[in-house]
Amino acid sequence: MKHSVITGSLGNLGDRFVFGGYKEECSFRERAEQLARIPGLKGLEISSGGEEANGTEVKKILEDLNLKCACVNVAIAGRRDLAKGSLSNPDPRLRQKAIDICKRASDYAAFMGADVINVWPGQDGFDYALCTDYGRLYHDFLEGAVAVARHNPDIRVALEFKPREPRNRSLVDTYGTALLMCAESGVKNLGVSVDVGHVLYANANMAAAVWACAERGRLFHMHTNDCLGYWDDDMILGSVHFIEYIELCYVLRKVNYEGWCSVDIFPNREDAAACARESVLYLDLFDRMVDKIGMEEIAKCIEMGDAAYVSKLIREKLF
Amino acid sequence: MKHSVITGSLGNLGDRFVFGGYKEECSFRERAEQLARIPGLKGLEISSGGEEANGTEVKKILEDLNLKCACVNVAIAGRRDLAKGSLSNPDPRLRQKAIDICKRASDYAAFMGADVINVWPGQDGFDYALCTDYGRLYHDFLEGAVAVARHNPDIRVALEFKPREPRNRSLVDTYGTALLMCAESGVKNLGVSVDVGHVLYANANMAAAVWACAERGRLFHMHTNDCLGYWDDDMILGSVHFIEYIELCYVLRKVNYEGWCSVDIFPNREDAAACARESVLYLDLFDRMVDKIGMEEIAKCIEMGDAAYVSKLIREKLF
Amino acid sequence: MKHSVITGSLGNLGDRFVFGGYKEECSFRERAEQLARIPGLKGLEISSGGEEANGTEVKKILEDLNLKCACVNVAIAGRRDLAKGSLSNPDPRLRQKAIDICKRASDYAAFMGADVINVWPGQDGFDYALCTDYGRLYHDFLEGAVAVARHNPDIRVALEFKPREPRNRSLVDTYGTALLMCAESGVKNLGVSVDVGHVLYANANMAAAVWACAERGRLFHMHTNDCLGYWDDDMILGSVHFIEYIELCYVLRKVNYEGWCSVDIFPNREDAAACARESVLYLDLFDRMVDKIGMEEIAKCIEMGDAAYVSKLIREKLF
Amino acid sequence: MKHSVITGSLGNLGDRFVFGGYKEECSFRERAEQLARIPGLKGLEISSGGEEANGTEVKKILEDLNLKCACVNVAIAGRRDLAKGSLSNPDPRLRQKAIDICKRASDYAAFMGADVINVWPGQDGFDYALCTDYGRLYHDFLEGAVAVARHNPDIRVALEFKPREPRNRSLVDTYGTALLMCAESGVKNLGVSVDVGHVLYANANMAAAVWACAERGRLFHMHTNDCLGYWDDDMILGSVHFIEYIELCYVLRKVNYEGWCSVDIFPNREDAAACARESVLYLDLFDRMVDKIGMEEIAKCIEMGDAAYVSKLIREKLF
Repeated sequence: MKHSVITGSLGNLGDRFVFGGYKEECSFRERAEQLARIPGLKGLEISSGGEEANGTEVKKILEDLNLKCACVNVAIAGRRDLAKGSLSNPDPRLRQKAIDICKRASDYAAFMGADVINVWPGQDGFDYALCTDYGRLYHDFLEGAVAVARHNPDIRVALEFKPREPRNRSLVDTYGTALLMCAESGVKNLGVSVDVGHVLYANANMAAAVWACAERGRLFHMHTNDCLGYWDDDMILGSVHFIEYIELCYVLRKVNYEGWCSVDIFPNREDAAACARESVLYLDLFDRMVDKIGMEEIAKCIEMGDAAYVSKLIREKLF
Repeated sequence: MKHSVITGSLGNLGDRFVFGGYKEECSFRERAEQLARIPGLKGLEISSGGEEANGTEVKKILEDLNLKCACVNVAIAGRRDLAKGSLSNPDPRLRQKAIDICKRASDYAAFMGADVINVWPGQDGFDYALCTDYGRLYHDFLEGAVAVARHNPDIRVALEFKPREPRNRSLVDTYGTALLMCAESGVKNLGVSVDVGHVLYANANMAAAVWACAERGRLFHMHTNDCLGYWDDDMILGSVHFIEYIELCYVLRKVNYEGWCSVDIFPNREDAAACARESVLYLDLFDRMVDKIGMEEIAKCIEMGDAAYVSKLIREKLF
Repeated sequence: MKHSVITGSLGNLGDRFVFGGYKEECSFRERAEQLARIPGLKGLEISSGGEEANGTEVKKILEDLNLKCACVNVAIAGRRDLAKGSLSNPDPRLRQKAIDICKRASDYAAFMGADVINVWPGQDGFDYALCTDYGRLYHDFLEGAVAVARHNPDIRVALEFKPREPRNRSLVDTYGTALLMCAESGVKNLGVSVDVGHVLYANANMAAAVWACAERGRLFHMHTNDCLGYWDDDMILGSVHFIEYIELCYVLRKVNYEGWCSVDIFPNREDAAACARESVLYLDLFDRMVDKIGMEEIAKCIEMGDAAYVSKLIREKLF
Repeated sequence: MKHSVITGSLGNLGDRFVFGGYKEECSFRERAEQLARIPGLKGLEISSGGEEANGTEVKKILEDLNLKCACVNVAIAGRRDLAKGSLSNPDPRLRQKAIDICKRASDYAAFMGADVINVWPGQDGFDYALCTDYGRLYHDFLEGAVAVARHNPDIRVALEFKPREPRNRSLVDTYGTALLMCAESGVKNLGVSVDVGHVLYANANMAAAVWACAERGRLFHMHTNDCLGYWDDDMILGSVHFIEYIELCYVLRKVNYEGWCSVDIFPNREDAAACARESVLYLDLFDRMVDKIGMEEIAKCIEMGDAAYVSKLIREKLF
């Protein structure tokens, strides 16, 4: 398993009530050094915004720390000018601006030696009834995504679906919608980024989401975290759920996933580096549990479909 | 708008606590006669189970009442023998049984003069982690759906998606998944049935769902009702939401929907016929509101994307 | 920890789609014998309905199996005649009928040697706006509950709160409402039954609920199970959540809870006895985990309030 | 109905992704002048933070515009230093700081001629399991709230409950909890502020909440807005729900509510003044609908408890 962490998780974090944020900012080097101490960490997922200006320096820092650039996260969801949409913005000039930002992120990824960019279209969606041309929204977005994908066929473009937030309803809301887009895109390097928290709080199943994307050759990237089930809480992985992560690790092996698993958390009030560390170590723990239970035993469970047997097996093998 | 009501809404209804149901049973003729009095009602959606045995009689009753058969609702979700899945049942014999039930429903629709069957795969899904082969589930289901569609290319097969219930998670959970299935089916007469309550309680938008299906030529059928937003409450249409129905009616016109809108409610403790009547009259009311506001005015709202303007317009035009 | 299981979990179970239920019925003796094999089980929670007719026989069976009667669960939520409310039914005669059923259940509990009855007012609530006198609902219910409590001051009456289902909104929806009722009741033997699933799916915290009730001397009973977070799934305990159960066990010790923990599950498609067995064994496992981590260590965690430290501690102590 | 608007709704608004906010700041005078144009507006709800420094000027502006100060909203939820709690902060000095902020807000309200302060304890709650002493949290908070209430018995202190956000779970989560606090406070001027959106997204009923608070003499304040049902969307009132607002207006009359209804919206991407205007006009519209239907007719509906009849009545009387 190729473990990574989104470096933004260690910066200043705020919400709609605490504008200035709950923390102090922290330089990229400091963040990277803190994360480099996590056992098993192999890479970092970096933002295309801000850090991008110092691409050479970022690259140097990663090399110094012997870490790969796992992925470039395109900074299109946090801009005031793109508040009404990035790749689907109703204003063609802003749409083009968003496309350009994505293309530069693609170039940045190539420069950093990464082969995937993560596109989370947080502002692409809608809030109120009777304010949206759903057809235009979809087609403009898809056209933009294809343009980004075509910019460099060697860089995979991973669309991160999410039911909602910051818009009341997202355009790319479920893996069903994301996969439909991929199927209709006509390009092979447009795929999906599965944020397990986005699946959980949509009351769906992360292993099923992973399977669906992988089956169609579209599982390009993974974001990991945990949540209480009603919102994108971005909590420490393993702090709420348990068995579903074991299933996730099992399915990731079955589909021979070779991409990265990037921790994506929002530790507003917590020690961010420690939370990232626990998230990586827990995912690793769940992955080793798969060995402890045994791939064949799990396959047998799935064949049997007997929930009580699964509970018994986990209880006896792990505790 | 072609109004219809699912006749099952007027029968005895229960839940997991009141096994015997909250009401007395009521013959098909009685139900049909009660519904026939609803102004503007043009058809009835009938179940393939139970009533099917008396196909000739059912046909006669509809003719007597001058009502069409809007749709045949395939009775595959309420059978104990198919508790672990209908078209995706892990047991091949039961899977075949489910396919056969659907095919007979298709024949029944043809006999009744309907051109669509509604397949709601309520039992096709899963409950616990590590109990499901997601690939097998999907492919078996799709293979079965295709077999049903191929049985009679003149009968359209409408898959009704739903996030969950009675299984903790449904296979055909969102319109994204349903449309992906259609795209991968290779048949043209496999499409989608949009139950607006299923969209609402998934925290999605019904007009967007309708557009997505229609755009791909897959909007085959509609079920209507209302809900509080967290569960498939199957309440009287218009008893909770308002503007979203106006948007729905607008989009149904824009996509030139020519199918049926069948009221699908669960009035456990209420006067079922009166609830069905109100549901039809409210949908009709919302449809007339589109005229009152004006198609062009609404198009302008959508172009503007200004929520305050929409609120003002509705307030001034309707009240 | 005094482990118990609700015997109804082993009977035939249905839902609003599968009226006849997913299973065959099973005699009380068979159920009791199956459950008696669960290691550590000390009692059974029985229903006041149906089984009540054979009180003497039920008592004999429990004695034969060396099991206590943990609690009598009052059968007021599954009756067609009380569909519009039990203790709050708008019809005074039906309200009195519900009171009488509860009083008989209280007598039955005394006869069985139990000191608590569980009152889950599933039908007491409302569905639609403008159909309810909220004041009447509350006061009638409370008056009825007080009458039941006064019937025998030695029998504790535990109100089981739940956000909704089968009504769209329940009267006794949260532990806040339940505790307010207790405070306003003027009787000491009216308290609360905490069903952990009802807390979880209300997006609240079970340990906080337990603390709130215990602090006021009103924690009379516990129902245990697990859920995915959006509905009262009544799944095997431990099949979804993990750390929250450890916290629950810790708080139950801190407040010196001496009551029962009754497994309350709905294994529609599963081996019910095996699911009940796993639920008991998992709760016991979580309770032993408290020892493994150490009460003082946990107290230190709570004092620190450091989520990363908690994750680390659990990881290192348990795996 | 005494209409008011929270002036903060017209300032710059952001979220956890758009730190700098979606808009430009706007002076208090500008905001007040924009709002003063709303027909029927009688007052403004002001924040105790920031604007407080210019109390005399704020007072002058309100007088110039012939608007009352409806309420002072205590600025304790948006401060980095109180990120781990305001009145329940684990650090006694910060707890005292929060109490002092509230007391100053109380003085400010007296100076402004308002008789109520709104205390929304957004940061008082918890995020992770095993990190919270639920007893300490509750008691510290209540002690602080009582200290604030006792500071000036002529100023009513309204606790605004909310299920969650920004903490994963709030301490004062439901009206049940809030009313329990009031009952246990021993002071008469501690009450509740009902934010209708907080009730809706907790899947509860706003009229029932209002009744519960009023019945106990604790309904001190109202915040109004709308939401899609899963989150505190703070949308334009009436942009989603309909009948529930009519019921709200009816119950507000029945309990003789004499306090303010303050619009509390978050128009990130919209024209804030226009959204506030529509919210006021819609609430006024719903209130007039009560007249149009008739208080006695509504009372009859409630007596009948017939949902189909309610739907029919509203359809016939209003459209």
